[in-house]
Amino acid sequence: MTGAAAQASFSEIRGLIGHLPGPDREAAAAAASRQQSLTKPPGSLGRLEEIAQWLCAWQGRHPPRCERPRVAVFAGNHGVAAQGVSAYPQSVTAQMVQNFLAGGAAVNQLTKLIDGDLRVYEMDLEHPTDDFTQGPAMDEARAARAMAYGMMSVEPAIDVMCLGEMGIANTTSASALCLALFGGAARDWVGPGTGVSGAALEHKARVVEAGVAANQALLGDPLGVLRALGGEELAAIAGAILAARLARTPVLLDGFACTAAAAVIARLDPHGLDHCMVSHLSAEPAHAMLCQRLGLRPLLSLDMRLGEASGAALAVNLLKAAVACHTGMATFAEAGVSEKA
Amino acid sequence: MTGAAAQASFSEIRGLIGHLPGPDREAAAAAASRQQSLTKPPGSLGRLEEIAQWLCAWQGRHPPRCERPRVAVFAGNHGVAAQGVSAYPQSVTAQMVQNFLAGGAAVNQLTKLIDGDLRVYEMDLEHPTDDFTQGPAMDEARAARAMAYGMMSVEPAIDVMCLGEMGIANTTSASALCLALFGGAARDWVGPGTGVSGAALEHKARVVEAGVAANQALLGDPLGVLRALGGEELAAIAGAILAARLARTPVLLDGFACTAAAAVIARLDPHGLDHCMVSHLSAEPAHAMLCQRLGLRPLLSLDMRLGEASGAALAVNLLKAAVACHTGMATFAEAGVSEKA
Repeated sequence: MTGAAAQASFSEIRGLIGHLPGPDREAAAAAASRQQSLTKPPGSLGRLEEIAQWLCAWQGRHPPRCERPRVAVFAGNHGVAAQGVSAYPQSVTAQMVQNFLAGGAAVNQLTKLIDGDLRVYEMDLEHPTDDFTQGPAMDEARAARAMAYGMMSVEPAIDVMCLGEMGIANTTSASALCLALFGGAARDWVGPGTGVSGAALEHKARVVEAGVAANQALLGDPLGVLRALGGEELAAIAGAILAARLARTPVLLDGFACTAAAAVIARLDPHGLDHCMVSHLSAEPAHAMLCQRLGLRPLLSLDMRLGEASGAALAVNLLKAAVACHTGMATFAEAGVSEKA
Repeated sequence: MTGAAAQASFSEIRGLIGHLPGPDREAAAAAASRQQSLTKPPGSLGRLEEIAQWLCAWQGRHPPRCERPRVAVFAGNHGVAAQGVSAYPQSVTAQMVQNFLAGGAAVNQLTKLIDGDLRVYEMDLEHPTDDFTQGPAMDEARAARAMAYGMMSVEPAIDVMCLGEMGIANTTSASALCLALFGGAARDWVGPGTGVSGAALEHKARVVEAGVAANQALLGDPLGVLRALGGEELAAIAGAILAARLARTPVLLDGFACTAAAAVIARLDPHGLDHCMVSHLSAEPAHAMLCQRLGLRPLLSLDMRLGEASGAALAVNLLKAAVACHTGMATFAEAGVSEKA
């Protein structure tokens, strides 16, 4: 971590929030205009047309590009794992990081298919965050440092960022973030995660409730919520989202835990996620409600619930398809095809 | 067309129906068993796991393969176009075939992305079928010949078949097929197609009703429905579906018109589409009802409504992802990752 990142603070992050760049309306309009001239009934490529315009708006260029996608997987360990909320032992976080590095995980195969650049960011796995049922998971310095670390995952040469996570117990953390940010009942925000059910799922809901109860004083502010109930990998994702916005790099969010981290940004700025799409609707039941609250419509819905940016990497295929159609198709005039009667 | 195809008859096609091969349960079981050992929570790759097992069952092999997808686009002209049911003139069918051959259509770009083999099958475009509001669109010989022509699109080296169509006025034909096969109201089976609305859409529904009324005597039998209300490209798709089953080649169906052609096979044999998946839910409103009647759940839902096998070609990316994860991921034992507690 660079010195600059180590010095990051919440007040610096708040300073960014007022100054996030907006869409490039000219590039988006150029895309919309070209789409009307291509050899297809207007609008008939559906969301592929939406994707092409969105890429233009947030890359600030026309034609859009999807040649250098980065898949960033942030891994963190959670003190709340001690409450027995996961079907797997905490050691699995580090073991899966080794699996990512060795090329054996799902995300490795999916990244290869999109000719992507997979980066794994290990967040001090030997030192889990504190158990949030007893007080904040992180102090401000640790959370800000994690955000700054996430920001460094965005580099100028990248044209799309896929964000995802690995962290035993982090759907518990994500559920707690949602409960604190959106209210409602803990039961509605928890789900099986890697595979808990029955009494274990009831217990998970009580742990989430206990976390919110133990941190009331911090929950008036989204960054306070993040440090109280989040984890380092989730804070890093929030940071990466901000950095991508500043770098004009569109973002594909993965599933439930990743979108919960993104929700912190949406609560800081209602337009803070305009450069993000949710790649897929997770089978984790709360993801649908979370996407609805954020006004984001997932691209895919394949009952996936693996995390590790797998859904985001998979959805890059749709972005490539959108770009290929947008840039490669002939116009009515070029092809000598009659237009609508 | 070969002599054999020219001789095809409905009775020969009916002869196949009793003898369609079933799934390879051993290959599917081998896939299911391997999936339990891979480094992910059980079932967490959702429909990618379903796809891998389905490919094994219908390719008759484990591991599954998706290296040589063929994208087959059948183009036909419809006499019913004379009723003014389309937003485009009939000449667009042949113009779009030229566009496919020149590489300028959406399906060209999408086929390139999957490293596929695009074949365009032009079905006697100079001689549209008869206007089905006045009697059958085709006689039995013409329909059977079109089915046989479609059957020849399946070759042994292909591991997945993507089926699609191009034909001005063919959503009208597809709606008529649905009304004849499933009953209900014409209004529920018609939609904008390439872009009709208002009074033109009401007119389209009346044309569909008139077609069903004019052909009652033939509608007791699915092949009779096909020749009365279908078109050559739709008959070819029905033929290709049968040939793919015999050749152990899984099939991705495109949108509404393609699925309506497939429905003829489902009506001949309730398991006749077990080797097919619907690639995407079309924006054409009747497609959802049609998929529901067939018990098929589309893989994608991206508001596409272009036809020309575009959705099927796009969904091949999901098949490739399923195969890559299935064959490339490490097992828990190989990666030294702890299993579920």
